[in-house]
Amino acid sequence: MLIDPSTLENREVYKLLIGTVVPRPIAWVSSISADGKPNLAPFSYFNIACAHPPTLLFCPNRRADGAKKDTLLNVEATGEFVIHIVDEHTVYAMNQSSAEYPSGVNEFEKAGLTALPSTRVRPPRVAESPVAFECELVQIVGLGDGPSGGEIVIGRVVLIHVRDDVRPDSHIDLRALVPVARLAGSGYARVTDTFELQRPVLQPLAQLE
Amino acid sequence: MLIDPSTLENREVYKLLIGTVVPRPIAWVSSISADGKPNLAPFSYFNIACAHPPTLLFCPNRRADGAKKDTLLNVEATGEFVIHIVDEHTVYAMNQSSAEYPSGVNEFEKAGLTALPSTRVRPPRVAESPVAFECELVQIVGLGDGPSGGEIVIGRVVLIHVRDDVRPDSHIDLRALVPVARLAGSGYARVTDTFELQRPVLQPLAQLE
Repeated sequence: MLIDPSTLENREVYKLLIGTVVPRPIAWVSSISADGKPNLAPFSYFNIACAHPPTLLFCPNRRADGAKKDTLLNVEATGEFVIHIVDEHTVYAMNQSSAEYPSGVNEFEKAGLTALPSTRVRPPRVAESPVAFECELVQIVGLGDGPSGGEIVIGRVVLIHVRDDVRPDSHIDLRALVPVARLAGSGYARVTDTFELQRPVLQPLAQLE
Repeated sequence: MLIDPSTLENREVYKLLIGTVVPRPIAWVSSISADGKPNLAPFSYFNIACAHPPTLLFCPNRRADGAKKDTLLNVEATGEFVIHIVDEHTVYAMNQSSAEYPSGVNEFEKAGLTALPSTRVRPPRVAESPVAFECELVQIVGLGDGPSGGEIVIGRVVLIHVRDDVRPDSHIDLRALVPVARLAGSGYARVTDTFELQRPVLQPLAQLE
């Protein structure tokens, strides 16, 4: 079927995107407000932006009423944040932190998490998370026209916390990491059904004819 | 363990990011050069940017020598591309299209795929793919300093092709889509081990005390 998204209700376009661009990794982002109040919230429009320099991005959509989410306001105010990887052990706490609490509510406390001081940035980090990336804001890119669009938040990774068993050598052990990803609706995925495909090696050009 | 990425070899930083930001959805991107030659290549730094207006992003890293990849050059030249979702049936063809062929080689042919004309944009689309998003370029954001950084390519979705069984109603059927995601190294993941978590519903504010 052929769908012109401009002919669909916004809600239907949203469901089409979140149902097909799957599975999405989850950025669990801690930040602080200008007056120092911590915030923690998950975002699944998240990925690596580039590896050199180490750069991550996430896209916090606007709230239903067009307002900016607390995380975005905090990053705009302070230029710092910590991105955590969500695993099978922290997924329930992550979900609890996704509730739309009023501004100023500390999601670390609501979700029963331990807030540890970060090393290079002011927002605290989640002690229970297997991987935490301390980030400094590089740029915020506006999307769309007005409040409906949202933003891309781009951050430089300045320090990385990794639980020892997750990185026994220079490889990441997926079975120690046990990451969790986002699907549509209330759906999540574990990363247990994996396989390998070797990238094709081309013959030298001279032999291609 | 605490890692300052500026003290690691570039390759080690890369392995840390691609091993922990997982699973990553795969954008299989078709484009054409200024003189009309089609190109097809996969990118796993990919996600939704925002839903209203429907906007996707992917980040094509530079080649090892700092050169821009053909996809990026084509998008810069033409402002158009098609993003396909990779499924279990097309994953081998996707992998074949990831080989670093010389510019001008048609990956549709190399991977044994059927190129169909798109409706709103000039790059052809992959007939075998369950979902294809015809996109118009919104913006290219440069990352980092010089050739090492790469770019974020942001595209507005102007038309969506969805195989009928994948969208029997306004929901996407994951078991029909059978998407495939990217892990580190030569690793991939199927999305079969799933679960649901209902988002917490807060009591009205007046009852929170």
